[in-house]
Amino acid sequence: MSKRIVVVGGLAAGPSAASKAARTNGSASVVLLEKSPHTSYGICEIPYFISGEVDGSRLVSYTPDALKERKQVDARAHHLVEEISPGKRFVSVRNLKTGKTNQEYYDRLILATGARSKRLNVEGEDARNLFFVRWLDDAYQLKTYLQEEKPKTAVVIGAGYVGLEMTEALTRCGLQVTVLHKSSLPLSYMEHEVRERIRSIIDGQGVQFHGMVRTEGFVLGRDRKVTHVVTSEGTFDCDLVIECVGVEPQTELATAVGIRTGSFGGILADQRQETNIDNILAAGDCCEVRNIINKKMMYLPLATISSKTGWVAGENAAGGNAVFRGAIRAIAIRVFGLEVIQVGISSEEARDSGFDVVVDSITAWSKVGIMPGATKLTVVTIADRKSKRLLGANIYGSEGAVLRGNTLAVAIQQGISVDDIQQWDLAYSPPFTPLWDPILVAANSLRKKL
Amino acid sequence: MSKRIVVVGGLAAGPSAASKAARTNGSASVVLLEKSPHTSYGICEIPYFISGEVDGSRLVSYTPDALKERKQVDARAHHLVEEISPGKRFVSVRNLKTGKTNQEYYDRLILATGARSKRLNVEGEDARNLFFVRWLDDAYQLKTYLQEEKPKTAVVIGAGYVGLEMTEALTRCGLQVTVLHKSSLPLSYMEHEVRERIRSIIDGQGVQFHGMVRTEGFVLGRDRKVTHVVTSEGTFDCDLVIECVGVEPQTELATAVGIRTGSFGGILADQRQETNIDNILAAGDCCEVRNIINKKMMYLPLATISSKTGWVAGENAAGGNAVFRGAIRAIAIRVFGLEVIQVGISSEEARDSGFDVVVDSITAWSKVGIMPGATKLTVVTIADRKSKRLLGANIYGSEGAVLRGNTLAVAIQQGISVDDIQQWDLAYSPPFTPLWDPILVAANSLRKKL
Repeated sequence: MSKRIVVVGGLAAGPSAASKAARTNGSASVVLLEKSPHTSYGICEIPYFISGEVDGSRLVSYTPDALKERKQVDARAHHLVEEISPGKRFVSVRNLKTGKTNQEYYDRLILATGARSKRLNVEGEDARNLFFVRWLDDAYQLKTYLQEEKPKTAVVIGAGYVGLEMTEALTRCGLQVTVLHKSSLPLSYMEHEVRERIRSIIDGQGVQFHGMVRTEGFVLGRDRKVTHVVTSEGTFDCDLVIECVGVEPQTELATAVGIRTGSFGGILADQRQETNIDNILAAGDCCEVRNIINKKMMYLPLATISSKTGWVAGENAAGGNAVFRGAIRAIAIRVFGLEVIQVGISSEEARDSGFDVVVDSITAWSKVGIMPGATKLTVVTIADRKSKRLLGANIYGSEGAVLRGNTLAVAIQQGISVDDIQQWDLAYSPPFTPLWDPILVAANSLRKKL
Repeated sequence: MSKRIVVVGGLAAGPSAASKAARTNGSASVVLLEKSPHTSYGICEIPYFISGEVDGSRLVSYTPDALKERKQVDARAHHLVEEISPGKRFVSVRNLKTGKTNQEYYDRLILATGARSKRLNVEGEDARNLFFVRWLDDAYQLKTYLQEEKPKTAVVIGAGYVGLEMTEALTRCGLQVTVLHKSSLPLSYMEHEVRERIRSIIDGQGVQFHGMVRTEGFVLGRDRKVTHVVTSEGTFDCDLVIECVGVEPQTELATAVGIRTGSFGGILADQRQETNIDNILAAGDCCEVRNIINKKMMYLPLATISSKTGWVAGENAAGGNAVFRGAIRAIAIRVFGLEVIQVGISSEEARDSGFDVVVDSITAWSKVGIMPGATKLTVVTIADRKSKRLLGANIYGSEGAVLRGNTLAVAIQQGISVDDIQQWDLAYSPPFTPLWDPILVAANSLRKKL
């Protein structure tokens, strides 16, 4: 069955959906429309481009031409979708280069309109030396600014994971970085002791962290550059500002035609990524996502989820029957020398979800303690006393934290009990793992509290 | 309830059982009897002691004194148990220092008599420069020999994991190593392509590997040192011989009183680690173990299993109710710069067990490909077409292989389907993992074949 599938949005979920649709139905005509000049690039790699670890020319995975040649997707950059006509099944598209508008008919439409950076909406936010970290052009402009104007000090607003990654990147570039954060400690959803550890790591790198700070405005000099950040806790001088206060779903196209959104403002799609409007699917950062553990909707704009929901939407739009079961929240971050991973729900979320929460924390060798380079890992576990299920975990240490966190992520999403975890048969080899893997040490300790 | 618990064997399962028994029942009297001078040491670390990575003085975890003070176990070295009297519930013990014999009464007896090195039983096997790698004294003697006699060439007989680890250790010490192996490629149970890769790695390090070789004898010089190894494929000169042709369970004490053993010669204990004789339990390398995947008994003398079965035996001997569910075979090894892990059953075992076997192999980035130091991993997966369960996996690469193998080990023992694995929500962070983890790439590829 030949079909015409139109995808709106070319960053992550869009190319994923379009490619999958083309693979699923070789006779389908798949069109991808992206308003910016760029498609399919790694926004998660931007901090490593800024730090100099990654070459900027390699951030783009698939240009529109590559999507055409290698994925059989008719990808068009500079194309802004302005309106959907669900009854007649077409979208109105403006070519931003020519200014002309035309109509693209669809059998199935996939919305992958993504998310935009949140703004503080305070005075001076459009300053020349204030950057968001969202789009590829943000990254290129910031890199150029760093090279040409050689700022010495930076204020990073927001200590979520992007804020922390940018803090590290700028510190590596030699800037003195001040971090202003709304809460008392960096990151949310991680356990208190992990957030304290991250705070102490960035302190140790000379970063100035200020918690419980509300940013109220920016004082600009005559060249339209921020000279001071004005906050509830005083004024901070700087040569550069990075704003990382989160993102929000872009759903204007969707809501204009009555597509349902949830309490976080994201599109509510079903397990097939279909919306409440016939023939319109949605995927990626414009959608909310169901938490597998507590069944609640959450807004979780992560590339892994964009990519998976994109696949599901693409396959189903092309006539397939794929399902996206939801997510657990699995986030890993490097904070200077520290590996940190958080999987599942936090102890606070677990309590709010009505679980009888037990929290435990252990420290254990990442490999055999007498081997050269052996370091210790901390494993914080969160379980439900009634079902004995593991609900969440945080792991941090110099090495071996992230991949072990992924192993516990499996337990969390498969509903495996702590008793079962403690019995796991895992490999032991002195250069890599100790006789009792930290995961087993954690499960054994947690089990005693259940 | 006060009890007297006697444990025979002080290497791995024994101290594990004794310590657990003392923890489980604080009023129990726990006696551990070990014929050698040493208790509780890391035999898995011996190759790293030989290579110089690990300090020999740190190989012992618990001396008899430490077991007494820190674990409340009355540990006695130089004590050889010569006989069990199950009716009267005592063992006859010879103090090897005084030569005297006495009787130790027990309420529960735990046999942790371990395994001994297999021998080829050919002429010249007692040569001064021929070493086994099993006991701590083997290691100290070999280390001394290396330091004092400075051999330049070595023949390692057997390319199982201990043989390969010793090959690497001796190569690191500057010796020219020749490996003689009964099969055409190193290791068993791993898939052909992985064994080929390991062969090419050791070839690249200048090791001479000879497959399909049967060792027939040793030619000794006048100082009782091997000068030549005589084999089915010719004669090999050397200054040193390491024999690593496997181990076999030591069950003489057990079989003398009618304790049942299996087709591999190991003790058959139940899930509580109880033998067929009242009040006698067994744990560790003297036992066979049930494979969780195909339910068959196997002989798998690994420290992880010794330690777990020791715990179960100790807890149950002290009045507890613990269960050991079996093992999947999870083995990791470093082969020079290569991480290799094997979990679950091989494709050959799977076919022999009646599964409808599907094998797949993929190569994928261990972290985001554009990050510095990114390398590729190969993941070989083995599944059952009917149940869609993952049965086994091999992973190798420069980094991140072993811990990912442990994640797949979880899927294998928990009976998780390939469809579920492909849906796993795992963390993505450029310094550690790519957008699609190699595990997910493997599951997605394998799924297409099912």
